Amino acid sequence: MTKPRGGSSRERAGAGGSGRRTIIGVIGPGDQASAQELEWAHRVGALVAAEGWVTLTGGWNVGVMDAASRGARDAGGLTLGLLPSSDRAGASPGLDLVVPTGLGEARNNLVVLASDALVCCGMSAGTASEAALALRAGKPLVLLSPTPETMAFLRPLGRVPPIDVPDPAAALAALRRAVASR
Amino acid sequence: MTKPRGGSSRERAGAGGSGRRTIIGVIGPGDQASAQELEWAHRVGALVAAEGWVTLTGGWNVGVMDAASRGARDAGGLTLGLLPSSDRAGASPGLDLVVPTGLGEARNNLVVLASDALVCCGMSAGTASEAALALRAGKPLVLLSPTPETMAFLRPLGRVPPIDVPDPAAALAALRRAVASR
Amino acid sequence: MTKPRGGSSRERAGAGGSGRRTIIGVIGPGDQASAQELEWAHRVGALVAAEGWVTLTGGWNVGVMDAASRGARDAGGLTLGLLPSSDRAGASPGLDLVVPTGLGEARNNLVVLASDALVCCGMSAGTASEAALALRAGKPLVLLSPTPETMAFLRPLGRVPPIDVPDPAAALAALRRAVASR
Amino acid sequence: MTKPRGGSSRERAGAGGSGRRTIIGVIGPGDQASAQELEWAHRVGALVAAEGWVTLTGGWNVGVMDAASRGARDAGGLTLGLLPSSDRAGASPGLDLVVPTGLGEARNNLVVLASDALVCCGMSAGTASEAALALRAGKPLVLLSPTPETMAFLRPLGRVPPIDVPDPAAALAALRRAVASR
Repeated sequence: MTKPRGGSSRERAGAGGSGRRTIIGVIGPGDQASAQELEWAHRVGALVAAEGWVTLTGGWNVGVMDAASRGARDAGGLTLGLLPSSDRAGASPGLDLVVPTGLGEARNNLVVLASDALVCCGMSAGTASEAALALRAGKPLVLLSPTPETMAFLRPLGRVPPIDVPDPAAALAALRRAVASR
Repeated sequence: MTKPRGGSSRERAGAGGSGRRTIIGVIGPGDQASAQELEWAHRVGALVAAEGWVTLTGGWNVGVMDAASRGARDAGGLTLGLLPSSDRAGASPGLDLVVPTGLGEARNNLVVLASDALVCCGMSAGTASEAALALRAGKPLVLLSPTPETMAFLRPLGRVPPIDVPDPAAALAALRRAVASR
Repeated sequence: MTKPRGGSSRERAGAGGSGRRTIIGVIGPGDQASAQELEWAHRVGALVAAEGWVTLTGGWNVGVMDAASRGARDAGGLTLGLLPSSDRAGASPGLDLVVPTGLGEARNNLVVLASDALVCCGMSAGTASEAALALRAGKPLVLLSPTPETMAFLRPLGRVPPIDVPDPAAALAALRRAVASR
Repeated sequence: MTKPRGGSSRERAGAGGSGRRTIIGVIGPGDQASAQELEWAHRVGALVAAEGWVTLTGGWNVGVMDAASRGARDAGGLTLGLLPSSDRAGASPGLDLVVPTGLGEARNNLVVLASDALVCCGMSAGTASEAALALRAGKPLVLLSPTPETMAFLRPLGRVPPIDVPDPAAALAALRRAVASR
């Protein structure tokens, strides 16, 4: 028999007695991500893992998705990826659990629905659709050093306003508050 | 036997010999749409219908979706709605064809993929996700009198820039150019 | 202005004053369809069109999907295809309205949900998933000359039993009863 | 920092150096599951967990889905549920990771695509759609004590034939062969 996994982590991570794990979506550009955004994503993944939370991404082995998965994995966290494709080719090697959805960009809504809260590291068209869907669904959305244009556009869209933070440590603090209040 | 429908309309509308109809997606707020946005959507639907094109919406009987469907239907056009729900309850009475997708907000990506071009009348979180997905997919996106914040946010996201127009007539001119160049 | 399309057809086809069109899904094998199944599908499409109903398929230009679309189109009917792919490549030339869903085989559930009733011409793995989902959703399911194995498997699965018919004319009679009782 | 989870389990479970976990889908009836089917599902979940594999279900807290999740969880395994709904209400308490897909029955295709192999405990309309989609996708499909009608229907549908086993231990042996050959 396999030993039960990380009891103490389970206790910190679970949602009460049921053991359901808190899931944090990390979203951002793929190919076009900047070095700064990749560094943020890697750090956010590590901090989410240290908290005992699961890191969820769009699954590809590029950009913010890949950096967050690797950061979380390297810190001992559990990682889940929801790929748009119908098989696992191109999945980030930082993922424990790979779900090929076969849905194309429609999978963006699943990234949102599966997350207790989301952190956004940089912007792209796909990322923008996820940020908008997060606001639509009332999910806490934390943006790492967003442009003024991004905040000016997103702020009026949701009942719950998006949260602007300067760095990964502040993102984690915002996530803690968001998770605690759910 | 039913008589073949509108031969001359078919010839104007079809994509060559195959007869495939050009589809224009009309997107915008639901419950929160302003009187101005509803008027625009109704007029856009009528102009799209007069062109022999199909009007596609997210299907509900509220807001821009409903106004565009009614405008197109009243002008003799064909209307298609892609509902997020799994049955037809709440569909706009202006629709000829109702497709309950059962996908929730993931249906937004289908509105984009099914459209040859899209017209945006006003903004909301759901609309923003569709606009972003349209830019992601490289679909022509025409925005009716958008705010400066909307254009500042969306402009950098796509390879093909979004098109800012002041009124429905200018939207139609932009759609004609977009459809002709596809 | 485009002339309103087929008033008399509209009156026969619509669901009351709203004008919503009745949609019949035609499902069956793609590449592997037999000559008999293709002939059935073509004839079913023609009969559905003559009734003023819309013919809905999975959209490809092969097999039962293609034959049903062409049969309906040639008889003057309106045709709608829900493709699994994210663009229109490979769509049947018999389609008026092409919706690339980008959902892969998950689009099978949309074929079911969008149909008032379904006709099955032959069997394949994809077709089986649609037949099962139709029973799951309580949609009338008419099977053209199914094997005893097919009926033995499907019969216990639904609250509404699948309907076994010998030929396209009997399929139409079954569809009329199904549509009338909805 | 959280301690890395179960190193030895990771080594047994992973797909080479990348650490990707093998995922086994367990499918079967919900409300209508028999006592025998529930017992099978619970045992299959436990055996899958003992192998170091992840147990994947359709997520609800009823029937085979719930029994498999609980069986796997109680044996120390990791459990993932893909719900058709858009929030977590009604999720099995045996789940570690809950993904509300918001896709309705279209989520059945995701259960298939995310699985390295599937085990079927009993039959229903929803289960039949998953079994058919598994054959469509070429996924190994193991059926626990299926009826002759089920095997007669499913056998011709796939390139890879479905595998008929008498009990959970034989199911595990079949899964081991299927996973090893991928």
